[in-house]
Amino acid sequence: MVSGGKARATGAEQRLENLGIKLPPPPTPFGAYVEGVRIGKLLFLSGMLPVVDRKPQYLGRVGDKLSVEDGYKAAELAALSALASIKEQLGSLDKVASIAKIGIYIATEDNFRDHPRVADGASELLLKVFGAEMLSGRIVLGVASLPLGVPVEIEILVEVAD
Amino acid sequence: MVSGGKARATGAEQRLENLGIKLPPPPTPFGAYVEGVRIGKLLFLSGMLPVVDRKPQYLGRVGDKLSVEDGYKAAELAALSALASIKEQLGSLDKVASIAKIGIYIATEDNFRDHPRVADGASELLLKVFGAEMLSGRIVLGVASLPLGVPVEIEILVEVAD
Amino acid sequence: MVSGGKARATGAEQRLENLGIKLPPPPTPFGAYVEGVRIGKLLFLSGMLPVVDRKPQYLGRVGDKLSVEDGYKAAELAALSALASIKEQLGSLDKVASIAKIGIYIATEDNFRDHPRVADGASELLLKVFGAEMLSGRIVLGVASLPLGVPVEIEILVEVAD
Repeated sequence: MVSGGKARATGAEQRLENLGIKLPPPPTPFGAYVEGVRIGKLLFLSGMLPVVDRKPQYLGRVGDKLSVEDGYKAAELAALSALASIKEQLGSLDKVASIAKIGIYIATEDNFRDHPRVADGASELLLKVFGAEMLSGRIVLGVASLPLGVPVEIEILVEVAD
Repeated sequence: MVSGGKARATGAEQRLENLGIKLPPPPTPFGAYVEGVRIGKLLFLSGMLPVVDRKPQYLGRVGDKLSVEDGYKAAELAALSALASIKEQLGSLDKVASIAKIGIYIATEDNFRDHPRVADGASELLLKVFGAEMLSGRIVLGVASLPLGVPVEIEILVEVAD
Repeated sequence: MVSGGKARATGAEQRLENLGIKLPPPPTPFGAYVEGVRIGKLLFLSGMLPVVDRKPQYLGRVGDKLSVEDGYKAAELAALSALASIKEQLGSLDKVASIAKIGIYIATEDNFRDHPRVADGASELLLKVFGAEMLSGRIVLGVASLPLGVPVEIEILVEVAD
């Protein structure tokens, strides 16, 4: 178990710059909702898709048209979109105290089994940006379909630093 | 980001009456669980289905037998069921301080893409009842099947007013 | 509604022993994540599978190769794995103040409808171990596929006693 609120990601913004990672524009809602709601120290982020400027960058199903590597990259892009949204909502990624949980939902063929490898596209990005002491909890599911026809959707629960 | 705990839905009960909306009977469990658990200010609601008196009002899959409009209405009914449950658990909808997150799970054909429109059946109801300042976070997935064969299931995380 | 934090499961370890239940070894991650993250009193558990020593004990889809009874047993084993992980993370199951929510995700045939019965494999175990006063909230979905090809995955949100 990782206890939240101890290890602060004071270096997240710096690490992002060192890695040469540019965040995509923060996402905007596709309906009657907002991209996140904060209750006390918890920021509940809405579902994040592998889109740039509302346009899907990947379409289809992993194990069918899309390979595991495609799925990995789609998960990574959805996670970058999540980071862009967190930064927009909190002002800085350095305000993240911990990542309580990441949900990774993958549109798959029925017999697909390599979910963990696809999911690591998001998890390994978080690892690079926030460090090993902030590894999150994780749930991964293979779903029938996703909004707009994308192969991956993620949701993140953030603990905000005081 | 919407910050919880600021805008109280003091008018939710009144708005419901003004809109002429009648809530269905509050749902009862289909197994060894309860309809919600409160931890501090957070009320974690169980999955809500488009049922009345435990009878499904919609059956089937969106994109197949059911249209987007059918799905929209099913999502709306599941949300009404959720409101009935929240009212039963808290005594009044005016005790809702914010809606942190709504999860909307839609049984779909594999190639379905119009999830946001179906999901808005629930989100637009919440908007009418709680107002724009209480728009929630949202996650929407297309799933393979749902309990009893219904097309939509929703879950809601509520912040309770002091 | 069950209010958390009142009824403490002071007897959970004793009940487990009385029932003659042996917990499997606590699970280890299949990727870049940890098995749980604690934020204040909330322990967010990662997805739990019906595995022992990382080996799936059930494979396939409920309603196809697997019966409802198989699914029930797989859900029970995933819940045992969750208990093993909670015990490892908190030191004792007696530190559980309440179970806020259990998510039960079942790989099913498209026309499957008996989700609640499968889900009760997990819920009825929790009932036996923690008692009726600690019944959890619950969400149950039928999904397209799950990691490693297992039929059931569960996630649990625990309230930790002070």
